Amino acid sequence: MAPHGDGSGAAEEAAAGGAEKRPVSTIVILIAMQAEALPVVDRFQLVEDQDSLFPKGVPWVRYHGTYKDLNINLISPGKDPSSGVDSIGTISASLVTYASIQALKPDLIINAGTAGGFKAKGASISDVFLASEVAFHDRRIPIPVFDLYGVGLRPAFSTPNLVKELNLKVGKLSTGDSLDMSQQDEATIFANDATLKDMEGAAIAYVADILKVPAIFVKAVTDIVDGDKPTAEEFLQNLATVTAALDQTVCQVVEFMNGKCLSDL
Amino acid sequence: MAPHGDGSGAAEEAAAGGAEKRPVSTIVILIAMQAEALPVVDRFQLVEDQDSLFPKGVPWVRYHGTYKDLNINLISPGKDPSSGVDSIGTISASLVTYASIQALKPDLIINAGTAGGFKAKGASISDVFLASEVAFHDRRIPIPVFDLYGVGLRPAFSTPNLVKELNLKVGKLSTGDSLDMSQQDEATIFANDATLKDMEGAAIAYVADILKVPAIFVKAVTDIVDGDKPTAEEFLQNLATVTAALDQTVCQVVEFMNGKCLSDL
Repeated sequence: MAPHGDGSGAAEEAAAGGAEKRPVSTIVILIAMQAEALPVVDRFQLVEDQDSLFPKGVPWVRYHGTYKDLNINLISPGKDPSSGVDSIGTISASLVTYASIQALKPDLIINAGTAGGFKAKGASISDVFLASEVAFHDRRIPIPVFDLYGVGLRPAFSTPNLVKELNLKVGKLSTGDSLDMSQQDEATIFANDATLKDMEGAAIAYVADILKVPAIFVKAVTDIVDGDKPTAEEFLQNLATVTAALDQTVCQVVEFMNGKCLSDL
Repeated sequence: MAPHGDGSGAAEEAAAGGAEKRPVSTIVILIAMQAEALPVVDRFQLVEDQDSLFPKGVPWVRYHGTYKDLNINLISPGKDPSSGVDSIGTISASLVTYASIQALKPDLIINAGTAGGFKAKGASISDVFLASEVAFHDRRIPIPVFDLYGVGLRPAFSTPNLVKELNLKVGKLSTGDSLDMSQQDEATIFANDATLKDMEGAAIAYVADILKVPAIFVKAVTDIVDGDKPTAEEFLQNLATVTAALDQTVCQVVEFMNGKCLSDL
């Protein structure tokens, strides 16, 4: 019952069900911010659903289409009904992951998005990483075993051929609901040995894990967390440029998947 | 588009749909910890589902039964499959709220559970409060409007007659995924004017709000956050006693609801 157990279990279960032996067919690409999502929508000429897959009231948006042999579903949590901003963070991410898996039964989930990077761990602005594992850094529960539950460490689905072919950087990803980083967050991110800091990854990994769907995490660096510029400023400054790098990598990842089985990724 | 708008909207929409004019029929009681849930299960002689309402893999548990004219569903996020501990915190809470509303279309949600209390705001161990409003204290996003989204302030469904009849204390509730409290958490809890601190409330309020289901929050104080005892120790020490106080109040709340319309609560 180690926290590691279930992540690799997703792959094992997929293999047992034969999913590893047939080509990937349906993929869900989860992207939290509209600015990050739209270039991918355009690239694959995806079409927004007219009748939502999702219940009345939720702001979640699906764009769908086909690319070669793949059914592509790009799902975004959309604009918060109360405030009008992108529904970023772990709660919306976990809800759209759950609802997307229920509705679409994907073979694989790709969570793509921007992230902060640590230069001390080798990250630079516009780098695109594939996460090797994900964990939380803002769920401190100092009671035995609850502490491990809070951190929620999980491996990403392993894709060694994809990493090699696309020559992607690989690093650990730490997730929390704040754009800034408190001292406590920093200590946990350090303990998590993270190169990357985002606001959705570990939540998506959690839901994908309990529902046994393999998930990978493509993260492009918009700001250097251990640099000297304020995070919010640096993030907004680099968002457009970095989103282009992200878009390009997501397309390469999808292209690489076409016609391949999970076990070939 | 004010953050307040949608919370009261749940009540308005319920009224528009006629739900306020007929007696409450189906209620969902969401309780995060098994130790908090089982006394309520026993009290109402609820029965655990043999065939789960929920998808394979999720640990969520439903207990159901009837009490007078009410269909009672007590739903707990259950034991984390990886670590075996109760699935506490905002992600599981938001997922079970979403799945429960989809499966059961309840007239009302009652989130019951333990909480930390601030003695400076009048809280003592074993007090049972009804929350007047809920917000997050660990989602810091210092970009205009995103900051308000992060705090996610929402009013609870207003139940003035229930408060009066049961002579309940009323206070504001602040939610975060850590059992402890960092300096940053403390500053936001203070800004939220909170009497109570829990790990689920604002997440349940968010999901109930977007799906337009009225929600109330019954919280019993297990530990004094601004006291001199360590939170985890005080929490574990008082859990059994305070759970009895919580159970009693939840039963009184359910009893009060029987035969009443939402607008009479």
